Amino acid sequence: MSKTPPLEQKRALERLRALDQERMHLARVTALLQWDEETCLPSGAVEERAEQLAVLEGLTHEKLVNPEVGRLLDNLGDGTGLETAEFPAGDFLRILRRDYDRAVKLPPEFVRESARAAGLSQAAWVRARKNNDFAAFAPHLEKMIDFARQKSVFLGWGCSPLGDTRGSVYDGLLDLHEPGLAEGDIAAVFGPLGDRLSALLRDISARPQPADAFLHHQYEVEKQDTFCRETLRALGFDFNRGRLDLSAHPFTTTLGFDDVRITTRYAAEDPLSGLFSVIHEGGHAFYELALESALRSSCLAEGTSMGIHESQSRLWENVIGRSRAFWKGWFPRFKEFFPSQLEGVPFESFYRAVNMVRPALIRVEADELSYSLHIILRFELEQQLFNNTLTVNELPAAWNTAMKRRLGIEPAFDAEGVLQDVHWSMGAFGYFPSYALGNIYGLQFWERLTADLPDTDAALERRDYAAIHEWLREKIHHYGRRAEPSFLIRKICGGDLSAEPFLHYIEKKYTELYGL
Amino acid sequence: MSKTPPLEQKRALERLRALDQERMHLARVTALLQWDEETCLPSGAVEERAEQLAVLEGLTHEKLVNPEVGRLLDNLGDGTGLETAEFPAGDFLRILRRDYDRAVKLPPEFVRESARAAGLSQAAWVRARKNNDFAAFAPHLEKMIDFARQKSVFLGWGCSPLGDTRGSVYDGLLDLHEPGLAEGDIAAVFGPLGDRLSALLRDISARPQPADAFLHHQYEVEKQDTFCRETLRALGFDFNRGRLDLSAHPFTTTLGFDDVRITTRYAAEDPLSGLFSVIHEGGHAFYELALESALRSSCLAEGTSMGIHESQSRLWENVIGRSRAFWKGWFPRFKEFFPSQLEGVPFESFYRAVNMVRPALIRVEADELSYSLHIILRFELEQQLFNNTLTVNELPAAWNTAMKRRLGIEPAFDAEGVLQDVHWSMGAFGYFPSYALGNIYGLQFWERLTADLPDTDAALERRDYAAIHEWLREKIHHYGRRAEPSFLIRKICGGDLSAEPFLHYIEKKYTELYGL
Repeated sequence: MSKTPPLEQKRALERLRALDQERMHLARVTALLQWDEETCLPSGAVEERAEQLAVLEGLTHEKLVNPEVGRLLDNLGDGTGLETAEFPAGDFLRILRRDYDRAVKLPPEFVRESARAAGLSQAAWVRARKNNDFAAFAPHLEKMIDFARQKSVFLGWGCSPLGDTRGSVYDGLLDLHEPGLAEGDIAAVFGPLGDRLSALLRDISARPQPADAFLHHQYEVEKQDTFCRETLRALGFDFNRGRLDLSAHPFTTTLGFDDVRITTRYAAEDPLSGLFSVIHEGGHAFYELALESALRSSCLAEGTSMGIHESQSRLWENVIGRSRAFWKGWFPRFKEFFPSQLEGVPFESFYRAVNMVRPALIRVEADELSYSLHIILRFELEQQLFNNTLTVNELPAAWNTAMKRRLGIEPAFDAEGVLQDVHWSMGAFGYFPSYALGNIYGLQFWERLTADLPDTDAALERRDYAAIHEWLREKIHHYGRRAEPSFLIRKICGGDLSAEPFLHYIEKKYTELYGL
Repeated sequence: MSKTPPLEQKRALERLRALDQERMHLARVTALLQWDEETCLPSGAVEERAEQLAVLEGLTHEKLVNPEVGRLLDNLGDGTGLETAEFPAGDFLRILRRDYDRAVKLPPEFVRESARAAGLSQAAWVRARKNNDFAAFAPHLEKMIDFARQKSVFLGWGCSPLGDTRGSVYDGLLDLHEPGLAEGDIAAVFGPLGDRLSALLRDISARPQPADAFLHHQYEVEKQDTFCRETLRALGFDFNRGRLDLSAHPFTTTLGFDDVRITTRYAAEDPLSGLFSVIHEGGHAFYELALESALRSSCLAEGTSMGIHESQSRLWENVIGRSRAFWKGWFPRFKEFFPSQLEGVPFESFYRAVNMVRPALIRVEADELSYSLHIILRFELEQQLFNNTLTVNELPAAWNTAMKRRLGIEPAFDAEGVLQDVHWSMGAFGYFPSYALGNIYGLQFWERLTADLPDTDAALERRDYAAIHEWLREKIHHYGRRAEPSFLIRKICGGDLSAEPFLHYIEKKYTELYGL
């Protein structure tokens, strides 16, 4: 191929970028419809919003599976010679090719059918959880597992009739959320991690708990909101490029290159719940807001994977937000907001209360240590379900056994056990591991960051986050989808996925906190 | 044609309805993008939002000019035999035909070019108003007039080369906002109306003004908001089907059959400004929220014209909201919200202050009486511009002369004169008349309503709006676009457009208020 690409190729790339941009704009509009639904939508308009969403999602899909996109991708190949300082054509073609292939491999009737089944399944799950009736949900779950299995096969995994198998059916589902990681890679890390965390949790459970009654006084919600906004701004969130709103479940969503919105919720008797949601979602937002501008409006303009995203939110929420240095910086200010509630509370008592470890049944309420155990348990059950060593009917009992083994406690009924999460009812299998991968990646990054920036604790104490942002931006954020998770880990940490830094951090922190 | 339409025709109608519904959903999504821009959008995302809007508007237009729509319309004709109790097929086909014809008559390049020019023109207008420099804006205004003229000709008005002329170029522009009304019809009503209103304004200007200092104390904005929400709810606004938010300029927008949102703004030293915006926009919302459910998601599910819409908002804002009976109902409650600000203010003083008439330069700040004069003046200038009896360069002087003649005052500079409104800079000619038509229609309707419901004043005093809503719904609202303005006037009032009821109302009210 000649060094200067023919004008024709340049034009083809421009055209492909325009098509991709139109699709990305529609995807952002879809995100606005969803954000509005969670934060603003009048209750009477829910059904109609679903129709609007279906139209938008249909159009977005159409834009992606447009045969012109396929032809242009074929023409442009790997983009040799098209790379410029302004635009990473090679990465663009590689990622768009992946999106396109995934989309065209799924037959439209299959997509429609599974979306319809997911809607019914979710509704059935809501009822089943309310009535604590797993049996009523089981047939839907079986269907969702079957759809997920078919999807993976369509995408070329498992026992594909075409013989182009790349890995197990479950590998295919994992690949949707964490490209490049197979179940074997994850199991090799999760297994030992689970054992060591369980052991630590057992030791901690035998120790006395710190007092935390002062965290359950009445904390005025308006003041919590003011404090959270001040904190979020100080952490580096640019309110000219995003918003903080209220919703039933906290989330982050990207409505544009300069419009990333997060939400939280406040409870008067639990002032840290709203704050840690803000910091967690803020971590997601910092990632989306630090992409290099060359990626603007293209399919590259997103975090690279669920796991890397979660590494950012958990880094900010836990490693930074629950650290002694962070609260050295913020506790005095927090006391100014809530002087009566925190009267006479010494710093160390507060710090210990912030980091209380207590095995609990519900994942979303779990502490920093137990959280990964909840995930490992789900991963192992998903593996068994997709490898046919566990049936849906056996699932509740398997769940309870795993809880007992991993966390030392057992749910009294399925609503607080196997029925607690929405994910499986929507067919989102292979998604859970991202959460624990986030913890693992996060500490791999943090180990390097603190080696590069030995002053970090002092910076946190003076509430100066600039160097941390700069490091994360340069090493991780700016790439967007250009860099795969494995590339980032290798480039930053010089090795593969490893839970050692996370375990080291957890064991050190909680050994000290609980005087083990 | 047989009584039972062939299955084929039924299927064709279903298909056309599905295509129309998809377009309407996209139009609602566009409205959400715009609502969000005015109420929520972070400042950094404005440019990107414009790109998203352009994509959505392009797709919506594509859906309308889809040749399949044209073929189906041709096949289905006037829908004879397709009418059912569930769906007014005849009206649907008539209105969709009108939308389709209008859309396909405008060449795509023309639409693109004029949109681009309008963007530049609006920016030039913002600068020109800021610098009080009409000359800098004049070339843009000339261009916008030329585009409007071409548009009207494309749509079959004026000197069409195809010879299918239906009326003057300006008639064509009026028809876009008020279908069925020609400039002659409007001039015949506006001329005498203007003269009588000007005479009344002169008489009032010679009378002493009521005291209103108590309306310029500090009224806490949070309390204003609480009062406005209570009032809006009491007036019949269903917060399960809509919202009230803040924006720089108050507006109403329809995001769905069950999602109509209004906005307002509050000024601490002018508590009635925010309230009357809420009532005005509420009037628009009541219309959009009272359509018959058969119209849901179709092109019929909207108010029938700008003028009829404005008749509803002005009825609620002025005829109801500034009436003695309304405030008999609300003044005691208003005093409970603001006891110190209104201490010792008798009801009659308050009522007189609410209805103060004072000629002013700025349209959007005009009182109920002068408002129509601002509009008549703009209508007469638009007529002259499009009939080539006035040039753009002569416009500022003509404006000042007309202000002197109609309102007895003259702007000292163009920024508070000819440059005050955004409409012309966007090419929205033929739009202004709707505002005064709203006043006229409104009183034609109100005359009938109070004849049918003689108890109305007593109902207003006891804050009971149910019968008014029911009357408006049955006579006007439920039709949506099924009924043209002229049909409504004829059916309800038994005649044509007439300013007599409006004049009678104004003369009676203000003769009493000012002791003329």
